[in-house]
Amino acid sequence: MTQFENVTISKKANVYFEGKVTSRTVVFPDGTKKTLGIMLPGEYEFSTSVKEEMEFVGGTLEYKLQGQDWQKIEESGIFYVPANETFLLKVYTVADYCCSYISE
Amino acid sequence: MTQFENVTISKKANVYFEGKVTSRTVVFPDGTKKTLGIMLPGEYEFSTSVKEEMEFVGGTLEYKLQGQDWQKIEESGIFYVPANETFLLKVYTVADYCCSYISE
Repeated sequence: MTQFENVTISKKANVYFEGKVTSRTVVFPDGTKKTLGIMLPGEYEFSTSVKEEMEFVGGTLEYKLQGQDWQKIEESGIFYVPANETFLLKVYTVADYCCSYISE
Repeated sequence: MTQFENVTISKKANVYFEGKVTSRTVVFPDGTKKTLGIMLPGEYEFSTSVKEEMEFVGGTLEYKLQGQDWQKIEESGIFYVPANETFLLKVYTVADYCCSYISE
């Protein structure tokens, strides 16, 4: 899916890490939510409250989930983070992502 | 308006200036188009093909239209750029913008 239809998008961005990570929130007709974001090169730690699907559609990076080794993504890749966990990212080139929030 | 409803949004971002300027394209039911974007601190030159409304909803910056003096925007402000012109920006803090493309 290269675009999302019939959605609501917030005009104002979410800004983290002094703007090195930014996203915009998209709400779907069924009430589910995704954020579309950009990460500039850098090292980041994030925390989840619900399960997240992290899909990358651009960029080169490594990610580390709790209790697992570093994994590399080049240009495109997807991983899942359980609720209430932290994960680490090392972003090497501008990364374009879509994060889906999954209530279980 | 703090959000846009019933729109189509591209999953992939537009990336300029090595990621220091990024945006996502939003298409409205009537076919008109806006981009929602972020500019990190820096100096930029942009060109228009159609008339553009540049609305800022965050950040501190100065802009210069052709034949005019530099003007300052703090947190929020709006300006218009004619079609087929260039304009200059000096962005001092992370700037959050909404650009509307106006066909005349």
